[in-house]
Amino acid sequence: MSAEPFVVVGGDAAGLSAASKFSRAAPDRDVIVFERGRWVSYAHCGTPYFVKGEVEQLTDLLSLSPEQATERGIDLRREHEVVAVDTDDRVVTVDGTDGQFEQPYGDLLVATGARAVSDPIEGVELDGAFTLHGLDDAAALRAYLIDPADASVEALGGGEFVDATRAAHFAAMESPSSVAIVGGGFVGVEMAEAFSAYDLDVHLFQRSGHVLQSFGETVGEKVETHLRERGVTLHLGEPVERLQGDDAGRVEAVVCPEHELEVDAAMVGIGLRPNVELVSEQVDVGETGAIAIDDYGQTSADHVYAAGDCAEIEHTVTGAPTWNTLGLPANRAGRAIGQTVAGDPEPVGTVAETSVVKAFDLECGRTGLTDLEAARDAGFDPVSKTITAGSRSGYYPGSAETTVTLVADRDTERVLGGSIVGSDRAAVRIDTVATALAAELTVAEVERLDLGYAPPFSPVWDPVLTAAKVLRGSM
Amino acid sequence: MSAEPFVVVGGDAAGLSAASKFSRAAPDRDVIVFERGRWVSYAHCGTPYFVKGEVEQLTDLLSLSPEQATERGIDLRREHEVVAVDTDDRVVTVDGTDGQFEQPYGDLLVATGARAVSDPIEGVELDGAFTLHGLDDAAALRAYLIDPADASVEALGGGEFVDATRAAHFAAMESPSSVAIVGGGFVGVEMAEAFSAYDLDVHLFQRSGHVLQSFGETVGEKVETHLRERGVTLHLGEPVERLQGDDAGRVEAVVCPEHELEVDAAMVGIGLRPNVELVSEQVDVGETGAIAIDDYGQTSADHVYAAGDCAEIEHTVTGAPTWNTLGLPANRAGRAIGQTVAGDPEPVGTVAETSVVKAFDLECGRTGLTDLEAARDAGFDPVSKTITAGSRSGYYPGSAETTVTLVADRDTERVLGGSIVGSDRAAVRIDTVATALAAELTVAEVERLDLGYAPPFSPVWDPVLTAAKVLRGSM
Repeated sequence: MSAEPFVVVGGDAAGLSAASKFSRAAPDRDVIVFERGRWVSYAHCGTPYFVKGEVEQLTDLLSLSPEQATERGIDLRREHEVVAVDTDDRVVTVDGTDGQFEQPYGDLLVATGARAVSDPIEGVELDGAFTLHGLDDAAALRAYLIDPADASVEALGGGEFVDATRAAHFAAMESPSSVAIVGGGFVGVEMAEAFSAYDLDVHLFQRSGHVLQSFGETVGEKVETHLRERGVTLHLGEPVERLQGDDAGRVEAVVCPEHELEVDAAMVGIGLRPNVELVSEQVDVGETGAIAIDDYGQTSADHVYAAGDCAEIEHTVTGAPTWNTLGLPANRAGRAIGQTVAGDPEPVGTVAETSVVKAFDLECGRTGLTDLEAARDAGFDPVSKTITAGSRSGYYPGSAETTVTLVADRDTERVLGGSIVGSDRAAVRIDTVATALAAELTVAEVERLDLGYAPPFSPVWDPVLTAAKVLRGSM
Repeated sequence: MSAEPFVVVGGDAAGLSAASKFSRAAPDRDVIVFERGRWVSYAHCGTPYFVKGEVEQLTDLLSLSPEQATERGIDLRREHEVVAVDTDDRVVTVDGTDGQFEQPYGDLLVATGARAVSDPIEGVELDGAFTLHGLDDAAALRAYLIDPADASVEALGGGEFVDATRAAHFAAMESPSSVAIVGGGFVGVEMAEAFSAYDLDVHLFQRSGHVLQSFGETVGEKVETHLRERGVTLHLGEPVERLQGDDAGRVEAVVCPEHELEVDAAMVGIGLRPNVELVSEQVDVGETGAIAIDDYGQTSADHVYAAGDCAEIEHTVTGAPTWNTLGLPANRAGRAIGQTVAGDPEPVGTVAETSVVKAFDLECGRTGLTDLEAARDAGFDPVSKTITAGSRSGYYPGSAETTVTLVADRDTERVLGGSIVGSDRAAVRIDTVATALAAELTVAEVERLDLGYAPPFSPVWDPVLTAAKVLRGSM
């Protein structure tokens, strides 16, 4: 056991989960968390709902306040940036509020997260153009959307943490009457709903042919129909080249190869990139561009761990290292590493890339391999079926169309992945498929699952069972 | 292959599922279904919602009309009762509308269902006392509840099938101003909701200390609180001895050992009993009192199968024969037997006794072994934990308390069962546990499941994951 502290770089989901677990499991040992920003451990996934106004206060999105971290025995240093790591001497160099210093570590967790990608789109620096990766972005966006007569920095509820200058700038500006969302992934779809809560024209640009690509075409099409019904204008297959600014440096248009659209605001959500630069010379970085780890989250360097949006993680179905930025795997991996460092080894688990998203009144879910080409690349011989069934007994009020796609491997008959879309309790049903994947169940075994049935909640054959029945019939 | 037809006794879920599957799989062979009643293949589980008025027409509850059965190539004979079975000569004796006849069979499926138990409670034959086991019971009850000025047999929407005399009798009666429900199982709880839709005092009597016994005490208590909030008077631990009638033979009171309550109507839902008498000399009946079967639904007699509410089925967790009256296993077993008889053997599957029920605004689910004593009897060393978590991210509007109990075996760490109760998408989450049981996952494996997370649908750690985490911590 090392006398030196457990040092965590990054005070978000993975970092603070690790520190919390460690301080409970090894209360006599020190844990220091360096966070370069002012915010710690907040719910990224909640920011669209803050912008929309459903979540009132920015601080509602904090999972752990600095005070709570301290109570848990965590030495939390905000506005402290780790600028160098020496894995031979086990020491990190920190730029803090009182200057630079060195901090030795016994074990180190790199939980530096990811950042929003905006290239190759020019103009993201324009006034009125945003990415959404952090509470200050969310604060600025909501300040901009609210009528200047009603907007104030205080009303955002960010307390001492918020970038008040930036928020005040947008609060004073006239609200936009149109907005372009660049990118039709989770954030794009969630922000379409958020912007629609205000009185403005919402345009969504998606480079590829469908929104929510990772959910597959069937879900994408259903969501597109629903977005249009709710007044969102879709520009599918239209790659945005740049945002154009006026003389004052404010966004005035979105420019595509064959199309230009005047807008007052733009939000770019075209993806994230792992923050690996701090340690890219000291530890192995995988083909995904994220830090490579073993089953316990350890990197190629002794006593150096990585977790969350900066690290790879093993895929439940393929077994290959994969990179994603989902909340649960980050929390879980952080927690496991905290326990491991405390002396009780715990694997970080695998990730099936299960995700669920709300698009106005539609609920969508996906898990595992849903793209047949990706499944073939992973060495499977995939076969897929899509069915539509009711969410409840047909005679019971409120039954809604629920569309399920299941993918299986023809050789082993193992279920590889699935997606679901519908308006009535659809998203939660993907957990049945996620559980089946983890247990490596075959299609026949899924078909024979004894799932719950009652008229208000499900037809006799749950849509997932019906999908398994139809898929099995085709194999 | 036999030249004689596949004969099915009973035209409900199991019987017609078997006949439908058989006629698709072996279109050149004959299948005859004898149904002693006028109704076929209807949704038992929907009857409380018909009584409540949420389902408008009785015929909405038919899963398959006689015409549809004929279109599928099924020779359906309603009002034909099979009164004897000769398994040596492979022939059944049928009392039909045109007299008695013998029908040879190649294979026979006994799907005779179950009947409502009313003993040891006297007085169920009184006017204004009901059991709820069939559409005619549902029709009579609703006719009674509706104001005589508005009530008519036609408005029940039962078409040619309904027992019009009985319905007309109750339609003409003054509506009750109070009702006693005897029995706090599924039907009792669902009927409490149904009766409450009318303007009357609802009393629920339960012999044991809690309603919904098979869901365990935690769920029972939550439901009791909710029922009381919704105006239902609970009489827990009060065994009803008899229903008391007036001189005209009408229900006037419920009599308990230490308590008597005047009521205008009573509904007895204290359980069901399998209908095995037709073949109890010819095939083995198990300890549960239902017909014993093998993995393919075959009884101890050659070419004789049994499925549905009259048959046993293997328990997913214990492997022991069990008896239940759930919809999905009956449909599944029937379908499997239809396929097996057609020459493509398919196991009937196992049953975890997964069930879900709605109690006003509460959703409840249970699966596997939730009773510790039953788990010990089955040879396990059970350990159980109950947690309460939010159904959504805490900051997202609409998050509701969700209480999960998980039971596991201390030796193998295998999950044995669980229950759930809450008002927001709670019931469907039991399917995660049901899937885990079927796959024999351990508590640690459940804790590491990659379930879906998005603020509107789940906290980062789904309540099922939190339960697994806490349970594992205690093992």
